[in-house]
Amino acid sequence: MAQLRIALAQTNPVVGDLSGNADMLLQWTRRAADRGAHLVVFTELFLTGYPAEDLVLRSSFVEASVATLSSVAERLAEEGLGELPVVVGYLDRADVAPRVGQPKGAPLDAAAVLYQGRVVIRSAKHHLPNYGVFDEYRYFVRGDRLPVIRLHGVDVAIAICEDLWQEGGPVSVVAETGAGLLVVPNGSPYEMDKDDVRLELCARRAREAGCALAYVNMVGGQDELVFDGDSLIVDASGELVARAAQFTEELLVTDLELPEAFGELGELTVDAHDGTVMTVERLLLSATPVEPYDPEPPVVAERLDDLAEVYNALVLGVRDYVRKNGFQSVILGLSGGIDSALTATIATDAIGSERVNVVLMPSRYSSDHSITDAEELVRRQGLNARIVPIADIVTAFEKEIELHGLAAENLQARVRGMLLMSLSNEHGHLVLTTGNKSELATGYSTLYGDSAGGYAPIKDLLKTMVWRLSEWRNAQPGPPPIPENSITKEPSAELRPDQRDTDSLPEYDVLDRLLSDYVENDMGRDELVAAGHDPELVTRIIRLVDLAEYKRRQYPPGPKITPKNFGRDRRLPITNRWRETLG
Amino acid sequence: MAQLRIALAQTNPVVGDLSGNADMLLQWTRRAADRGAHLVVFTELFLTGYPAEDLVLRSSFVEASVATLSSVAERLAEEGLGELPVVVGYLDRADVAPRVGQPKGAPLDAAAVLYQGRVVIRSAKHHLPNYGVFDEYRYFVRGDRLPVIRLHGVDVAIAICEDLWQEGGPVSVVAETGAGLLVVPNGSPYEMDKDDVRLELCARRAREAGCALAYVNMVGGQDELVFDGDSLIVDASGELVARAAQFTEELLVTDLELPEAFGELGELTVDAHDGTVMTVERLLLSATPVEPYDPEPPVVAERLDDLAEVYNALVLGVRDYVRKNGFQSVILGLSGGIDSALTATIATDAIGSERVNVVLMPSRYSSDHSITDAEELVRRQGLNARIVPIADIVTAFEKEIELHGLAAENLQARVRGMLLMSLSNEHGHLVLTTGNKSELATGYSTLYGDSAGGYAPIKDLLKTMVWRLSEWRNAQPGPPPIPENSITKEPSAELRPDQRDTDSLPEYDVLDRLLSDYVENDMGRDELVAAGHDPELVTRIIRLVDLAEYKRRQYPPGPKITPKNFGRDRRLPITNRWRETLG
Repeated sequence: MAQLRIALAQTNPVVGDLSGNADMLLQWTRRAADRGAHLVVFTELFLTGYPAEDLVLRSSFVEASVATLSSVAERLAEEGLGELPVVVGYLDRADVAPRVGQPKGAPLDAAAVLYQGRVVIRSAKHHLPNYGVFDEYRYFVRGDRLPVIRLHGVDVAIAICEDLWQEGGPVSVVAETGAGLLVVPNGSPYEMDKDDVRLELCARRAREAGCALAYVNMVGGQDELVFDGDSLIVDASGELVARAAQFTEELLVTDLELPEAFGELGELTVDAHDGTVMTVERLLLSATPVEPYDPEPPVVAERLDDLAEVYNALVLGVRDYVRKNGFQSVILGLSGGIDSALTATIATDAIGSERVNVVLMPSRYSSDHSITDAEELVRRQGLNARIVPIADIVTAFEKEIELHGLAAENLQARVRGMLLMSLSNEHGHLVLTTGNKSELATGYSTLYGDSAGGYAPIKDLLKTMVWRLSEWRNAQPGPPPIPENSITKEPSAELRPDQRDTDSLPEYDVLDRLLSDYVENDMGRDELVAAGHDPELVTRIIRLVDLAEYKRRQYPPGPKITPKNFGRDRRLPITNRWRETLG
Repeated sequence: MAQLRIALAQTNPVVGDLSGNADMLLQWTRRAADRGAHLVVFTELFLTGYPAEDLVLRSSFVEASVATLSSVAERLAEEGLGELPVVVGYLDRADVAPRVGQPKGAPLDAAAVLYQGRVVIRSAKHHLPNYGVFDEYRYFVRGDRLPVIRLHGVDVAIAICEDLWQEGGPVSVVAETGAGLLVVPNGSPYEMDKDDVRLELCARRAREAGCALAYVNMVGGQDELVFDGDSLIVDASGELVARAAQFTEELLVTDLELPEAFGELGELTVDAHDGTVMTVERLLLSATPVEPYDPEPPVVAERLDDLAEVYNALVLGVRDYVRKNGFQSVILGLSGGIDSALTATIATDAIGSERVNVVLMPSRYSSDHSITDAEELVRRQGLNARIVPIADIVTAFEKEIELHGLAAENLQARVRGMLLMSLSNEHGHLVLTTGNKSELATGYSTLYGDSAGGYAPIKDLLKTMVWRLSEWRNAQPGPPPIPENSITKEPSAELRPDQRDTDSLPEYDVLDRLLSDYVENDMGRDELVAAGHDPELVTRIIRLVDLAEYKRRQYPPGPKITPKNFGRDRRLPITNRWRETLG
């Protein structure tokens, strides 16, 4: 057996920021070198950030990625880091003739090894995911090479993300190479209740490949995706060896005992058992094992519980959306209700209360507690608050046009939305939208009113989850940030006298169970009824959900938490006569 | 040789409206029977409408499609139409084991032949497009069967849409079957300046397949796509035989002389020359050629010129979005400028002036001609107009919060947007948004202000195209609907004293050429400069375009006209530090 010290760089790259990401690569490689690592592995498409969407179809972007890769290899050597091999994901292109239907320029979701100032080997993702939030047949062509580097006498193979999830392909080929370690850069978004599928998957693939497996995942928010890190290493029997923390950057350094290499160097063509043939390219970096040394004890971070995971994902989503888009501060409307209270709390935890601005916008229908509860929240968290009454503005509108019922209710919500957008434009704050998933699902919101803004932190939380998460946050160490009355009082939009959410909607525990089955589990009408939901309610709610599609399209992005949010993983036509109720 | 009378049903199905589309199938089949047709061919996914997006991943929807197919076959027979074979596109599912990454339920973009009350043969699209506006790897699994029906002694093969565009696959297999006719249901959206690629393609594929080819395309608007019809038939040498009109429903009936069938009935496995193997299924419907008859002269519709095509696409887009979403009327703001004037004119041509409501919303900065030009438009077209001054409402806002510069300008645009939305909520009108592509590209618009609404008819027209199209419309027979002054005057947003578009933007002819190269041709910075654009302007405009991504995401849908609009064919991250200027 031979020893290797592996450093997994669980980092937070920025989409499009090639030079910033290159700088980050240098810093983290230096940290790995300082820790005595023999190999450092970065995440999928690290240099470009991930996902870069249609940017990858732009020639100038691909060329810049390839140029950055070469230059960062040179810089590593110039800074004395050339002897430490670096595995890094980047954007490349395949040298294939263009054809109809192939992405323009044939982009590759590539990985390279940088060593002694040069790019010594390149490969690309073989299995391209095209489901859920992934559209990789749009963006990439398939790679068909499996690189194996011989490092201090150990053969290290490289595969990329989805290559682990599909049968056949790289994992199957690794088994035939006799490699001692498989390293896998990933861009794998967080999802609630995933249980521990990643560990199970890594364990299974390690056993199939017959070698240890190092899985490195990125961390951070990118539009509606939140990447949670959770990088890990399993041994050849699938046992967990080391694990990084969730939702935070970390350099996970682990000493491994690995079998010495025996295969022949050079190229080898292998049936990949998925209908394709792959070429193994085995390259010598250094043949002799390192001198035996005392290994450091492995780090195994504790996993967060479910609610802590969700909360951390929301905080990270807000922090990165603000930071990566160049905002310094946020602004939101406080109603005294639980949605805006939780949103403000998340914002405070994400960027600090001194950068959180809130506006109390009472109307003629606002209850007393709407102001007092909001003021109590402001006091507890030390937020920057102002009060802007809306009655006179509403009156000015009503002098010009006559409005009744819902139109009059919407007007109030829109005046508030406009005030927030105006203050955003005047002071440069990002507007946070405070709607929850139950509202979004049923269309219980106003277009350009409460739905106005730039980012919607809790748009993927059903109302019952909003309450659970608020209670969870209040139970954490330190003074409870959310006034208890905001959690316990009956929810109301307060757009007409004595309005209650239950005037229009069923109780939230009933509603949310139905929404979860219809939206997240994609059940049809008959299945819903069979699952025990009230048939009349099913008919009514499905109709509301289907009719609200346009509103959801216009809603700001927000962190995706559940297996099915109202974002890029659920794409329905606006013009659509299909109603489950008719089916 | 044998004769066949082919009817191509160039129809306008509605997404999700299975029963409505089934009714349409019966009506059109009856019309074809009345014309003495021997075969009627409907479009791709006709029964479900196209594209149905994530609906196809819902089990209940697939089941309803399959059930509708069977029931409509029975109804055809019950109504005495059973002897006329019908080719129709519908949604089915493949009987394959689920696997990671495969669309849930393995949906198929299928076609069937209905005959004598039964579904006699089924197949599915082989080549799945996954580029531009298409995401079919997300939605479908591949079909690998080529059906050939022997009808009155002629072998008729069936392929679907993209099967024509790719090399290998069905067309290649048809050549080996010796079929006499290939019929192809399509869902092919309109695109400006496509030249006559469809005819060229059909001619080439007919020669490859060695037989006549009947191409039937749908017509109508579906969210941002507009389907233009343009169904056509070419003979085995690729010569055009018949062609339907653009942008309108039509039953194209054509008599063809076709070779008599000779191949063996039953199944046959054939190399498809695209890395796959396909199964030919040849089925006898009727062996004997029809008695010789005098053919009718073929119909060959004249093609519209480029501007007529664009205008018809916009009118159809508006008409179908209004109708298919259940609106009875539209509302828009009239500024006296050309954008709102053209939008109103399109709306009038789409649904009639009695259903078009306009609001004149002068502010303290509005010029005299903004009112008089708008009133002249109202007079020419007989629109329902009202005037709502915004000054007092703006003042009411300014009493509560202090705003300067851009924030104050945006406020005026937002007050107008709110007035339109309020009137929409009160009276049920659909709000039409009047922005053009030059504005959208550069971010020269206000979020929730002039960008508010439900459908944006001219969002894919650069400003210079807005002028050209307005002049074209005024030059059509009848009185010119647009006041000349709206076309000729200098453009201004009128949000501050003496404002001109050229205060912030270059002249539109310069700007639009640059936008066309950057947005539609996807050129990088160096390419743009090499193409002769001013380097400083390139830097400035690229920056504006890249920073406006969020605004564009929040913009309503509108008809896609150009090869690259700001809709589903251009998908960029919001959080994105890549700027061409830095590259």
